[in-house]
Amino acid sequence: MDASQTYCFTMRKESRIIWWMRWIVIVTASLLLGFFIGWSANTTRSNSANKSTSGKYLKELLQGMQPDQIRQHLWKFTRLPHLAGTEQNLRYAEQIGKEWLEFGLDTVEMVPYDVLLSYPNKSQPNYISIVDQFGSEVFNTSLAEPVPEGYEDVSNIVPPYSAFSAKGQPEGDLVYVNYGRTEDFSQLEKDMGINVTGKIVIIRYGKIFRGNKVTNAMLAGAKGVILFSDPADYCAVGVQSYPHGWNLPGGGAQRGNIFNMNGAGDPLTPGYPAKEYTYRSNLENVVGLPNIPVHPIGYNDAIHLLKNMGGQIPPNNWKGTLDVSYRIGPGFTGDFKSQKVRMNIHTNNQVTRIHNVIGRIRGALEPDRYVILGGHRDAWVFGGIDPMSGAAVVHEIVRTFGLLLRKGWRPRRTIIFASWDAEEFGLQGSTEWAEDNAKMLQERAVGYVNADSAIEGMYTLRVDCTPSLHTLVYDLTKQIASPEEGEEGVSLYESWHKRDNWTNDRDAPRISKLGSGSDFEAYFIRLGIAAARARYTKNKETERYSSYPVYHSVYETFELVDKFYDPTFKRLRAVAQVRAGLIFQLAESQLLPLDVNQYADSLGKYAQSIVQLAQRHPQEMTKYEVSFDALFSAVGNFSVAARDFHERLQTLNREEYDPMPVRVMNDQLMYLERAFIDPMGLPGRPFYRHVIFAPSSHNKYAGESFPGIYDALFDIKNSADTAKAWEEVKHQISIAAFTVHAAGMTLTPPA
Amino acid sequence: MDASQTYCFTMRKESRIIWWMRWIVIVTASLLLGFFIGWSANTTRSNSANKSTSGKYLKELLQGMQPDQIRQHLWKFTRLPHLAGTEQNLRYAEQIGKEWLEFGLDTVEMVPYDVLLSYPNKSQPNYISIVDQFGSEVFNTSLAEPVPEGYEDVSNIVPPYSAFSAKGQPEGDLVYVNYGRTEDFSQLEKDMGINVTGKIVIIRYGKIFRGNKVTNAMLAGAKGVILFSDPADYCAVGVQSYPHGWNLPGGGAQRGNIFNMNGAGDPLTPGYPAKEYTYRSNLENVVGLPNIPVHPIGYNDAIHLLKNMGGQIPPNNWKGTLDVSYRIGPGFTGDFKSQKVRMNIHTNNQVTRIHNVIGRIRGALEPDRYVILGGHRDAWVFGGIDPMSGAAVVHEIVRTFGLLLRKGWRPRRTIIFASWDAEEFGLQGSTEWAEDNAKMLQERAVGYVNADSAIEGMYTLRVDCTPSLHTLVYDLTKQIASPEEGEEGVSLYESWHKRDNWTNDRDAPRISKLGSGSDFEAYFIRLGIAAARARYTKNKETERYSSYPVYHSVYETFELVDKFYDPTFKRLRAVAQVRAGLIFQLAESQLLPLDVNQYADSLGKYAQSIVQLAQRHPQEMTKYEVSFDALFSAVGNFSVAARDFHERLQTLNREEYDPMPVRVMNDQLMYLERAFIDPMGLPGRPFYRHVIFAPSSHNKYAGESFPGIYDALFDIKNSADTAKAWEEVKHQISIAAFTVHAAGMTLTPPA
Repeated sequence: MDASQTYCFTMRKESRIIWWMRWIVIVTASLLLGFFIGWSANTTRSNSANKSTSGKYLKELLQGMQPDQIRQHLWKFTRLPHLAGTEQNLRYAEQIGKEWLEFGLDTVEMVPYDVLLSYPNKSQPNYISIVDQFGSEVFNTSLAEPVPEGYEDVSNIVPPYSAFSAKGQPEGDLVYVNYGRTEDFSQLEKDMGINVTGKIVIIRYGKIFRGNKVTNAMLAGAKGVILFSDPADYCAVGVQSYPHGWNLPGGGAQRGNIFNMNGAGDPLTPGYPAKEYTYRSNLENVVGLPNIPVHPIGYNDAIHLLKNMGGQIPPNNWKGTLDVSYRIGPGFTGDFKSQKVRMNIHTNNQVTRIHNVIGRIRGALEPDRYVILGGHRDAWVFGGIDPMSGAAVVHEIVRTFGLLLRKGWRPRRTIIFASWDAEEFGLQGSTEWAEDNAKMLQERAVGYVNADSAIEGMYTLRVDCTPSLHTLVYDLTKQIASPEEGEEGVSLYESWHKRDNWTNDRDAPRISKLGSGSDFEAYFIRLGIAAARARYTKNKETERYSSYPVYHSVYETFELVDKFYDPTFKRLRAVAQVRAGLIFQLAESQLLPLDVNQYADSLGKYAQSIVQLAQRHPQEMTKYEVSFDALFSAVGNFSVAARDFHERLQTLNREEYDPMPVRVMNDQLMYLERAFIDPMGLPGRPFYRHVIFAPSSHNKYAGESFPGIYDALFDIKNSADTAKAWEEVKHQISIAAFTVHAAGMTLTPPA
Repeated sequence: MDASQTYCFTMRKESRIIWWMRWIVIVTASLLLGFFIGWSANTTRSNSANKSTSGKYLKELLQGMQPDQIRQHLWKFTRLPHLAGTEQNLRYAEQIGKEWLEFGLDTVEMVPYDVLLSYPNKSQPNYISIVDQFGSEVFNTSLAEPVPEGYEDVSNIVPPYSAFSAKGQPEGDLVYVNYGRTEDFSQLEKDMGINVTGKIVIIRYGKIFRGNKVTNAMLAGAKGVILFSDPADYCAVGVQSYPHGWNLPGGGAQRGNIFNMNGAGDPLTPGYPAKEYTYRSNLENVVGLPNIPVHPIGYNDAIHLLKNMGGQIPPNNWKGTLDVSYRIGPGFTGDFKSQKVRMNIHTNNQVTRIHNVIGRIRGALEPDRYVILGGHRDAWVFGGIDPMSGAAVVHEIVRTFGLLLRKGWRPRRTIIFASWDAEEFGLQGSTEWAEDNAKMLQERAVGYVNADSAIEGMYTLRVDCTPSLHTLVYDLTKQIASPEEGEEGVSLYESWHKRDNWTNDRDAPRISKLGSGSDFEAYFIRLGIAAARARYTKNKETERYSSYPVYHSVYETFELVDKFYDPTFKRLRAVAQVRAGLIFQLAESQLLPLDVNQYADSLGKYAQSIVQLAQRHPQEMTKYEVSFDALFSAVGNFSVAARDFHERLQTLNREEYDPMPVRVMNDQLMYLERAFIDPMGLPGRPFYRHVIFAPSSHNKYAGESFPGIYDALFDIKNSADTAKAWEEVKHQISIAAFTVHAAGMTLTPPA
């Protein structure tokens, strides 16, 4: 075709019509085409786009967190002691709140409560004496721990004490009761024939929550409790004492609260937030508050109390590694027979103001769905590990989320960050806030990630979480790098799997059940919000000490972490990545990353394991007609419902233009954990309401599955009325079966 | 322009480009135009269309319900006695289920439970005797009511009895205690100096729930209770006895359960559904089960017991209208002094299978939101009024909804219809189903409309409901016609307003608080689901009899309604329209028709009225520092939150293409009622959990606001320790203040 042509049309009427028709057809076709493109553009709006963007932001989040920054946060918040209720802990709260706002959170608020705390009397120090027959104090325990180098000028270091101890100066003979567990007291009474009524018991720390030791001692009739750290339980083999290593020095001692609050939070306002106008019970009406003096000592002091004790030599598993014979008493031997032990305890209970810091990122699409990252800020002294290793991680997570916000990202759901107060006094800050916001949390909370101490060992990752989060934890740790030296290119998952294989179960790293002893308690066990915690830990198989050696002592400093636990701060970064990744995925995934099939699997295993516990009494099971059939049938129904639910998920309409079907199934996912909550509570523990998970009544730290049945079976041995005790087992099986059945029902199509 | 023209183009390069450009512009413009039309067409999809369609269907629903059909349903289901747990009540359940399916419900299921019921012993009838000094029975009460004409051949009419009475044959002197209220017993003891320990008390029916009368008698030490219907309380002036009128004949008596279950449902399985595998308490562990014999009689029999009584003549307000002097005893007078009264009670408690019928219409857009219409089916005998006037109405509602379904309509949310069993034995069917489905209901239920007896008088409408439903009730009744003769063109609202103006409050017909005594209890007071009930009632001002005269007697027949209460069945139709309209609007409105401002208003009034009650003790309020400030402050905050919420509603994006903003606010509306639920329950009543509404502990029928405070104030007078009693008042004020405050918080923007 050349550049110029001449077209001649002789337009007759017909051809003009054709010409018009052609135009009309073309324009109409274009309009129609445009219409459909417009319609469907509106329809498929950014669904897949969202997904890949979301993946990109996850990567940025994980890579954005910096070891150096974490180190700096930790340094900054461990300069001074910041016990709950003190001025300094309020200062840190204000600083955290201010920085969170600077990082870019939408809102930050300071939320105060007035709760019952407990402090030593500043003018009358607590100590324990050995007194001779004339009443003279021939030995006194130390009034404080030797202050670590570099902190000599620091004031306001609270000396070791047992919070919520009764006041008093009981005097009497000592009895040694090993770890003070139910079985230890039972062995003492039944096998060794020793009654501790009117005695002062000396118990070593370890194995169970110290509050349970005190409860057991009270029930047995003791008039005082001395808690000591034995090197067997608080020193690692081949490690030097702090500051040359991370073992507990002989002058160090473990502070801690000794009150079994069983989920009540502030003991004066159980069930309600401790606000200014809240009605407070009289102290004498507080259930379970210790009514005997309790005091903790280090092993240097413990030697003096133990070395002259008389009485029987106990079995080997009652012996620690001090150079004493661990005789059980009562009282001293030989020349020392007339000596007694006197406790001098002047600790006061006191209603005190505490402060939580609550920050938020508003959700873009579902502002009424909450994902919570919470950890405490209050520390016994500096809190080098507990809790500031966790708080530093939270700070870095908030900083990095702030960076994403600046880039224009906003999560689908609302994220809430919390710096809790007074955790060390019985999870009070977190529990009061949960009580204050119970209705909203119950209706809106998708998940809670706990952020207490981020490290307690140098070996590998440790995760405790609800079964529905297992899959997310595994997926996520595959996207995070191992922090261990020499493991470049190895994922955290592989590194963890290699070190802590779940050999007796499945080919995956170990994930444990949630117990209690940290701030997730009210969220998980009372309110039924899916929860998880993650930290770096020791080698469970080879390192037999309890917790970590300097736990709750003055030696929990910045240097402890910087020199020994995580000099590169890569382990803390890895923990930050796990915690942040969980929050991100819970807040951002279109479909909630909760795996109901995994819950079904776990329920099956728990049912198996609880029936095995019962089957230790085969004759009684027959005699009292104890059957687990209803429980197994409920678990079966649950599993079918979970499988069907999962199948429906596959065909779910996930177009963003029609969000209702996704919201409906997400609500089913969110409320599944809630379905295990029984408003009646577990027997005698109205605030422990999770029928599948709670600590046993005998050790707050350990999470048990089917805790109602577990406790009822535990009590069989000690019950005076066996028939009645088995009735209680049957009652608890029935409740568990109903609850699992009802939970399964919530997964069926809603109508 | 002529018909044929010649166009010649000399297309140079430039003009060709222009030609092409023109084409491109036109096509592009068309495409773009189409795109935007398409985009926005997808956006405004059917929002306004939906609304008017929905209005059309409401009209069809209201007009679709037919008096004749209601009459026919009532006739059909009152042919035979159908006491809970009997074969005949199961037959009716099957028939109802079958017909609901035929009407067009999506699913219908029969849901059984095994609950504790109570029946007379067929071979040992219950009766009361007067015995002389030789032990001979000189008078016996009748064993049954005279059977009404036309029903002579009917078997299985259970004689009048008190369900859950203890067995026994106590013998002793009678004491007359008026209505058996707390104040009656108090007056008896304090003013009249009479102790009922070891006596048989005779109490007239009326004023309060009979179970409270029995509880009071037990607490006072009585060893038996005789309940009688006095003509003063069970006969209307100028009305003949049945069958010539609707008054209670002298041979008729009121059946009824006398057990205060306080919301527990089946007494053997409190808190859990009574399934086959459910653990059951021993009867002796059941809290509050009557441990003395109780029996109801008519006034013909009562005369014989009362006429020879001795002792003081009581004040006039203790006197009924029988021709006796209503002396209070103890015992008989003069010649009859040696006579005693003996009760012969052989009623058995028995675990029995009951059946609820549950039908559903699946919601189109929000299948996981439930609107429930529930009423009971079990009757003491024929149930002419109680409950079949209500059940007939439900049947007609289901039939009419079926007609809408056939026309292609489907509600936005899921509708659940329930025919409850064993209501007469303590709301058992409805409570067990609520326990069975508690989790789902808590998360998904939008509202509950109760459908017990639809008529108890011939005067006007009576509505009891939660404050957030007031506005809907008023709006709806304006769309319904008055059923009264001579009121053509008058709305039900106007007719009702004219007859029952709320003079001391606002210019609107009276709406009362929900108490208990029917199946809404577990849904409203335990679970916190917005609830309402509606029925036709008598003139409260002029008709002073209790309930309706033949209540719970054999004379509650089809004819009672057909001849006296509603010969045209238009009153029942009006009640059907109210109940159905509530269900329709709750299920179908895009935005839930719940008025939070109204709740705020009501809370303010309740707070005023409870403080007035307290201010009857001005000195003690000062002495014990009782302040309502926190409660008023909470109500103030709630009101602000409600007003702000309402303002946000005005600007809410209500486009159907983006349903999330509406869902978020609807969830806030739905969960508002839930926010008043305290899982701790009211003091001593763990299943009454609504902090704003519950019956007082002294009368199950009457709804009190702030029942915790109300009961604490009620107890001030009778408490041995005044200081402690006021502490409880303060405690309850604190709980109420917190609850109202927290409820207000749920109305603020969610993030």
